Amino acid sequence: MYTTWIVNIGNELLIGKTVNTNGAWLARKLTLLGYDVRRIIVVPDAEDEVISVIKDALNRKIKLVITTGGLGPTFDDRTSEFLAKVLNQELVINEDAFKMIEKTCKERGIEVNEKIIKQAKMPKNAKPIPNVYGTAPGIWIEHENTIIIALPGVPKEMIAMFEQYVEPKLKEIGPKLHFVEKILEIKGVMESEIAHIVEQGLKLGKVYIKSHPKGYKEIEIHVYSSDKIREKAIEEVEKVVKYLINEISKKGGNIVEVM
Amino acid sequence: MYTTWIVNIGNELLIGKTVNTNGAWLARKLTLLGYDVRRIIVVPDAEDEVISVIKDALNRKIKLVITTGGLGPTFDDRTSEFLAKVLNQELVINEDAFKMIEKTCKERGIEVNEKIIKQAKMPKNAKPIPNVYGTAPGIWIEHENTIIIALPGVPKEMIAMFEQYVEPKLKEIGPKLHFVEKILEIKGVMESEIAHIVEQGLKLGKVYIKSHPKGYKEIEIHVYSSDKIREKAIEEVEKVVKYLINEISKKGGNIVEVM
Repeated sequence: MYTTWIVNIGNELLIGKTVNTNGAWLARKLTLLGYDVRRIIVVPDAEDEVISVIKDALNRKIKLVITTGGLGPTFDDRTSEFLAKVLNQELVINEDAFKMIEKTCKERGIEVNEKIIKQAKMPKNAKPIPNVYGTAPGIWIEHENTIIIALPGVPKEMIAMFEQYVEPKLKEIGPKLHFVEKILEIKGVMESEIAHIVEQGLKLGKVYIKSHPKGYKEIEIHVYSSDKIREKAIEEVEKVVKYLINEISKKGGNIVEVM
Repeated sequence: MYTTWIVNIGNELLIGKTVNTNGAWLARKLTLLGYDVRRIIVVPDAEDEVISVIKDALNRKIKLVITTGGLGPTFDDRTSEFLAKVLNQELVINEDAFKMIEKTCKERGIEVNEKIIKQAKMPKNAKPIPNVYGTAPGIWIEHENTIIIALPGVPKEMIAMFEQYVEPKLKEIGPKLHFVEKILEIKGVMESEIAHIVEQGLKLGKVYIKSHPKGYKEIEIHVYSSDKIREKAIEEVEKVVKYLINEISKKGGNIVEVM
């Protein structure tokens, strides 16, 4: 029903210079939203490869295709162009995208040159997604029964765009799941001291864990899970929270459960 | 010419519990051997998905397909069975594989039961690859113009199998490249203190870097590169070695260039 492919575009991933953390991050998020990730595919910034994979996804009627990479201003950033080709749509300057870019440039004192404007070019039926940290907007296109979302390759930009604009929409149109979250306030340990505990916690249950450093030896940890049955999600979160409290206490951390 | 697909099989990769480090590691190694990695594809332990990807690679006449995962003794380890199906070969107990498994079990006092023997079942024309750390042998099959190599998913087993048995063979049949290697002996710093320097070094050039801890505050670092033109490979290695020496010295490390 909610079949999903993640397509990570970038040569740096294929020569092994960069580990595909974007793929894993998105897979985790989408799984928790109830989407069924069937493939994570890394392809080079090459027309034939990108088009072939997107075409394959359309033929198989994959519900959701999320790409990362190739949205920037340089010559090898061609995801938008490839999408226009494979969807047989004209590549045009999207007015909303142009305004987003113009606004960002104005705020930062960046000159609006040809290379910057290139990032406003999108397939005719596309809707742009705001980019909080960079200049290149993301792309949202619906084609027959498939939703294609193109996100930036820079993790910081990709994550912000997904969490602020994509996730709420996918939650709305996706399978209705119950989200359960618990927050832990921790004092007395460094984030680096407990990183492996968080990592272990992730493996323990169907949860997502995020740690935010709040100051010197002050960390906030969010643990959340989702399930069609609310009690199951609670159970997963509780199991992991118990583990975290236990292990972090051993490291000398003081923990307060906030909610 | 030396087109390559890496196919990582495993549900844990698709729910984002595990980052696909096997994919990146293999991509790096294969790139240095001169193979052209065109795709890294993560698929679930599902017959239709695995078979569809391998079939696609065969149709496209990809020279080399390396899979990881699905070789173990449990019910969801079915890579061997899928390969037999897609290549239209009988799945039989491979005599050499059986001997390898028997030997390992004997050495470790493991009972040779049905589940263990399952790991000797391979497509008729397959050759087994020894597994140094686990019981499941790898698989090497040549089919028309494609070489398919199935490796374990456990990184330690995968790496040892690749380095000891697969890499020498791929080097032999691959594009003839010059390998250049330099070894640095370092004293006075911990491996963890220089991990980020090594990581940065990797990004600086077309090199592979491996650090081996040799004792307390004693580390050996190998830097190597490959190129059809020997001088180019030397240049890449030299550039990175210079960076490493510079940065590690700042951390208080004593460095001896061995060769």
